[in-house]
Amino acid sequence: MSVLALLQESLGTLVDTDEASLEDARADRSGHAAAGRPLAVVHAERVEDVQQTMRIATATRTPVVVRGAGTGLAGAANAGAGEIVLSLRRMTAISEIRPDDLLAVVEPGILNADLNAELATHGLWWAPDPASRDISTVGGNIATGAGGLLCAKYGVVRDAVLGVDLVLADGRLLHLGHRSVKGVTGLDLTALVVGSEGTLGVVVAATLKLRRLVPGETCTVTATFPGVRSAAAASAAVTAAGVQPAIMELMDAASLAAVHALLALPVPSAGTAQLTIQTDGPAAAEEADTIAAILRAHDGDTVVSHDRVEGERLLAIRRSMHAAMASLGTTLIEDVSVPRSAMPAMFDEIARIEREYGITIPTVAHAGDGNLHPNFIFDGPETPPHVWAAADDLFRAAIRLGGTLTGEHGIGVLKRRWLADELGDDQWQLQRQIAAVFDPLGILNPGKVFSLDA
Amino acid sequence: MSVLALLQESLGTLVDTDEASLEDARADRSGHAAAGRPLAVVHAERVEDVQQTMRIATATRTPVVVRGAGTGLAGAANAGAGEIVLSLRRMTAISEIRPDDLLAVVEPGILNADLNAELATHGLWWAPDPASRDISTVGGNIATGAGGLLCAKYGVVRDAVLGVDLVLADGRLLHLGHRSVKGVTGLDLTALVVGSEGTLGVVVAATLKLRRLVPGETCTVTATFPGVRSAAAASAAVTAAGVQPAIMELMDAASLAAVHALLALPVPSAGTAQLTIQTDGPAAAEEADTIAAILRAHDGDTVVSHDRVEGERLLAIRRSMHAAMASLGTTLIEDVSVPRSAMPAMFDEIARIEREYGITIPTVAHAGDGNLHPNFIFDGPETPPHVWAAADDLFRAAIRLGGTLTGEHGIGVLKRRWLADELGDDQWQLQRQIAAVFDPLGILNPGKVFSLDA
Repeated sequence: MSVLALLQESLGTLVDTDEASLEDARADRSGHAAAGRPLAVVHAERVEDVQQTMRIATATRTPVVVRGAGTGLAGAANAGAGEIVLSLRRMTAISEIRPDDLLAVVEPGILNADLNAELATHGLWWAPDPASRDISTVGGNIATGAGGLLCAKYGVVRDAVLGVDLVLADGRLLHLGHRSVKGVTGLDLTALVVGSEGTLGVVVAATLKLRRLVPGETCTVTATFPGVRSAAAASAAVTAAGVQPAIMELMDAASLAAVHALLALPVPSAGTAQLTIQTDGPAAAEEADTIAAILRAHDGDTVVSHDRVEGERLLAIRRSMHAAMASLGTTLIEDVSVPRSAMPAMFDEIARIEREYGITIPTVAHAGDGNLHPNFIFDGPETPPHVWAAADDLFRAAIRLGGTLTGEHGIGVLKRRWLADELGDDQWQLQRQIAAVFDPLGILNPGKVFSLDA
Repeated sequence: MSVLALLQESLGTLVDTDEASLEDARADRSGHAAAGRPLAVVHAERVEDVQQTMRIATATRTPVVVRGAGTGLAGAANAGAGEIVLSLRRMTAISEIRPDDLLAVVEPGILNADLNAELATHGLWWAPDPASRDISTVGGNIATGAGGLLCAKYGVVRDAVLGVDLVLADGRLLHLGHRSVKGVTGLDLTALVVGSEGTLGVVVAATLKLRRLVPGETCTVTATFPGVRSAAAASAAVTAAGVQPAIMELMDAASLAAVHALLALPVPSAGTAQLTIQTDGPAAAEEADTIAAILRAHDGDTVVSHDRVEGERLLAIRRSMHAAMASLGTTLIEDVSVPRSAMPAMFDEIARIEREYGITIPTVAHAGDGNLHPNFIFDGPETPPHVWAAADDLFRAAIRLGGTLTGEHGIGVLKRRWLADELGDDQWQLQRQIAAVFDPLGILNPGKVFSLDA
């Protein structure tokens, strides 16, 4: 019996072979698509559906690509010829919210924003806030080890997951982690699963560490600078001064101009870069004043707002970046991360690469944590060779500055050829061996992360 | 050539076969000692010494026990017959402190308190604060995944380590992790090493995530209650109310009475339990007032102090617990952790176990994070069978309540027989296989954590 027939026999109408569904599963938001179309999409509704799919995949040695909302930016959830797509998008239940224990137990397919809307009615939130939060799933956030705007103050996904239920490649179900704040029983496999991009198992439930909604006002400080380097230096000075913004976003001149054009705002002076900073919590106003003084001392043209609505309006400029880039052409969004003090030097490297390759690389940065998103824009669906050459130069510069290939998007297919450069060959080999312990047949997301076929 | 001769030839005077040194390495602070004496203690001074020791160990298939200050409470660093002790206590360098990047790079043998004294001169601190901080090493804190008093607000060791340099069993050196706030390149092996108790490799350097010293006053609230259950309910109410203390310590009646006796303080009324709570940061005073109101509503006889010195004096009662227990006999300090809402139920279970086994179990708790330390007291060096039976009952109760065997001390030798009960057989087997990827010959701390020879 064929794999498809086995799936259909076992999972009935959950098995979707609609052309549009198969086509849709080939790509994520990276712009990259897999070669060929997958066999089928299984729309799992229960843990048992996931287990059954994995049992069939193991019995038939069929590759499985686990998929949430498909909003990834590294191609990790792209499925191609001969592969089963295991969609968790229908598993959206919140099985538990415990304000007293500051935890929630959820299924992986729930959207980050939907979860947070529900948590807010209990005075709670789950801190991870990737820019995609309205359209990305909690399971996807866990699989990529997502970041976002609030990480310097409120942490990344790894800091906000207490445990996961994991279905192994052969269909067995494991309960990893714990429900208590502390727990050191054996190896921390929960942390290993966070960011593993579908290579170790299928996360079918997660115990999330919650926070209480932050009381008090939110203050917003914006400042424009004559160039991106002075904006980067100003943001580094804010961090070095010991103030802790909730959000600190930097836009370089090309980004700011593109967004202003998209939103029909006045054209900024040539070269103008911008910082948008928010403070929250009991010391919000005081911290905003301190930050404003630092920005002014760095020649920033600075405005402070104590109004939450006005603050959201100011931040909307930053939030329109993705749309502004899409309006210019096909975009390869990069994701290097460097120690905060190296931000100005990283912008110098980007300027050098722009000169050397004769291209413009509009760049925004989560400046509070040193995570930069340089955008390569081009025509047509395929990333041209000179753009990959420039990206290669960019990655090597980030690693040279003590940084990393990817702060929050992951390796997927797009960065696998640089993975060993950062890890070193010994560690790369060790990581592959660890993945093989979870997935000895190599059926979980083959060709992603550790593959050399780049 | 014998293992000892090989070590001496290669490492000269770093190899110590002094009887007192060998005897010392048999035990930690758990009261448990290994059978027999180790072959030698290697006092590594450089990474190369560690690598050389591991190469010899691999070539000769000799077990290695890595050791810091020997302050563990689970026997994980105890070395016995036929084993090499690899002491990192001389590797105490701080190679980098970066206030702008909020990180430090240190060698593993530095004492936690020594590091923090140095960091304080830069206005910084490393948040992990096990009660042993004056006498325990950073490397030991990492190996156990240590906790402490401040974890509910400031996190555990896993949250405060960005990367580690790891020497593998065969002597190869790997650089794991990153220097940036964000980083999702490959699997998070740094998190896997934290809490691995010497089974995966030898941590020879660590990149630590730092915080700035918290400005403002520290307020202390103490309250006495007619019984431990009402104290536990009051602490759960504080957490449920959304206030975030820096420290929230609970002492039951037997603990409080023992410390008062040790310090020659007035004898508390029978059954009196105590909560000691500290708040810090910009809202410290306001939070202390809110907490005091909650404690009074729970019949707590409550005192608030805004004086830092007075606060330290009040906290000194809690800090004298270990000495008070030692004055009563040999102590087996247990370390279960439960969701915070289950604290009152866990105290009910302890009371039940006390009745059923006819023993007294003085218990203190880090009540802010649900981590309890029940103390079993007995005469003589060996834990008697009825104490192990009571401890077994205690572990099973904690797991039943959604908790864990060990919040911060680790498995070591003392809890290996319960490890599979918590993890399940499938996960236990998977963890062993992962450890074998790092250490295929099984020479790193054999008999600890995963061993069945209990």
